Amino acid sequence: MGEFELIRHYFQRPGANPPGVVLGVGDDCALLQPEAGQRLAISTDMLVEGRHFFPDVDPAALGHKALAVNLSDLAAMGAQPLGCTLALALPRADEAWLAGFSQGLFALAEAEACPLVGGDTTKGPLNLCITVFGQVPPGQELRRSGARAGDEVWVSGTVGDARLALEALLGETPLPPDVLARSRQRLERPTPRLALGLALRGIASAAADVSDGLCGDLGHILAASGVGAELELGALLASSALSADLRARPRPQLLRCALAGGDDYELIFTAPAAAREAVLQAARSADTPVSRLGRITTEADLRWRDESGQPLDLALASFDHFA
Amino acid sequence: MGEFELIRHYFQRPGANPPGVVLGVGDDCALLQPEAGQRLAISTDMLVEGRHFFPDVDPAALGHKALAVNLSDLAAMGAQPLGCTLALALPRADEAWLAGFSQGLFALAEAEACPLVGGDTTKGPLNLCITVFGQVPPGQELRRSGARAGDEVWVSGTVGDARLALEALLGETPLPPDVLARSRQRLERPTPRLALGLALRGIASAAADVSDGLCGDLGHILAASGVGAELELGALLASSALSADLRARPRPQLLRCALAGGDDYELIFTAPAAAREAVLQAARSADTPVSRLGRITTEADLRWRDESGQPLDLALASFDHFA
Repeated sequence: MGEFELIRHYFQRPGANPPGVVLGVGDDCALLQPEAGQRLAISTDMLVEGRHFFPDVDPAALGHKALAVNLSDLAAMGAQPLGCTLALALPRADEAWLAGFSQGLFALAEAEACPLVGGDTTKGPLNLCITVFGQVPPGQELRRSGARAGDEVWVSGTVGDARLALEALLGETPLPPDVLARSRQRLERPTPRLALGLALRGIASAAADVSDGLCGDLGHILAASGVGAELELGALLASSALSADLRARPRPQLLRCALAGGDDYELIFTAPAAAREAVLQAARSADTPVSRLGRITTEADLRWRDESGQPLDLALASFDHFA
Repeated sequence: MGEFELIRHYFQRPGANPPGVVLGVGDDCALLQPEAGQRLAISTDMLVEGRHFFPDVDPAALGHKALAVNLSDLAAMGAQPLGCTLALALPRADEAWLAGFSQGLFALAEAEACPLVGGDTTKGPLNLCITVFGQVPPGQELRRSGARAGDEVWVSGTVGDARLALEALLGETPLPPDVLARSRQRLERPTPRLALGLALRGIASAAADVSDGLCGDLGHILAASGVGAELELGALLASSALSADLRARPRPQLLRCALAGGDDYELIFTAPAAAREAVLQAARSADTPVSRLGRITTEADLRWRDESGQPLDLALASFDHFA
């Protein structure tokens, strides 16, 4: 199967282009028509075999995740998806793999109205690079730099389950099969929080997605905003941000996974205290649970207090690809 | 050097964002503001070590080429650059390599007003994926599908030199050092024909860039337009499309390089015969030579006639990554 046949067979879908897509796969460029006056939000993520996924991962799950991690960046910006491109280096044209991968990718692309509009296919060590495009009205984007002292800190969904699965798959911790299955689903098929990102427009003061870990990604918001935060471990432990599976783990593992676990693709965000009800209403409208963990401070560091109000000693770093 | 420090040091430039860039490197997404009503043109290309470039290639040349091949797709669409993203997998954080690569990339990005607005950096076998964004007024884009019978076929600059250099570097043909140096420049530092693409808006009926080879890329136009073409070898041989270096090669090599050589990043385009003067004027205004090679026909195939008017027998295929 040649390059062009491969693209036609696995990555071109018949039928009319969705609204906003003037020209899809097959020319020198794709052409999109964003709505008048909207800003264009762009993010790109590269996934490498052995680094971001195991060689034997289900290709459909990989297709899902490769797009999901990019859509998560649009969600963290409050942007609405317009389309995506896929560049793919493959060691060989493995048709079973391609069928699974494209099925997983297109299922999420269709569910989130983010059509594949172009790409590139070449031979090489397995590598997936997706770039996504979205739109957001001027001034409504959720930047990392907007957190202000007094704002409250929130996180969506649950955090730590993806890291729990990773530790088990790396042989670092045994897990009961049902717990592994559930946490592995979170690792391999993350849910981009697009509806929540849209609902938080005009409400959240800053947002990021949890890809490197709760502390690390909140740290990006704090650095960009020139502020600090004080978070209550008790609030985290009492919140819905921890799954029952994670709660049942030994405390060091629970804290490690929840505070420094990456790959969750939840949203960490801040909002003025006066907007607390609006945040809860946005969460309900997006059908996405949110948990309030603490507040933004003027001193530029991230501090946790334990259940007795004492400073929590954490030597937990964010994941860094070159550390 | 960690991932974030690496990005800051090599891929973030100080100073204000250029016009159109609302938010650059450092948030979940970049934000661009295209001009009102314009369409967004998008292209992505992935370059793999050992496949698209030699492991010992000058990193500055590689930085140039990685962006140039993408800008060439914007040129072929008649689009004006707005910005680009870079996703990069590196085996290690080699500072000399990164300094050279980013210098080559930024030099072209600044020359063509295509700022780097975002990206991703990870560890893995060397792989570069650039995605470019441009804008074009509705209806003025140069699609592949617009060629009509009677239109004339044109090519910009010179073709075949990049392939000549490749054959020499692969040890398939010896070349005098000065010839190798000149043709290697064409292979490693191609010139995206952006000014010509813009000047051909409203004049050319179809366009593509010559990345796979003259015959192969014209073939994409013919297939998309449902037409054929009859090209005159005599016109090619008499034109400025062949460099003096290539003319001096044995005829089989000259034809192979000129007709099937990839990596030229010239524009192959069609225009109505009545627009011949307008094409020449556009070429002058863009300071880019163009050569007229033949015309579009109703029969859906690509035929060449030799200098005596006889059909030329060519079994030259376009380059295909999985053939």
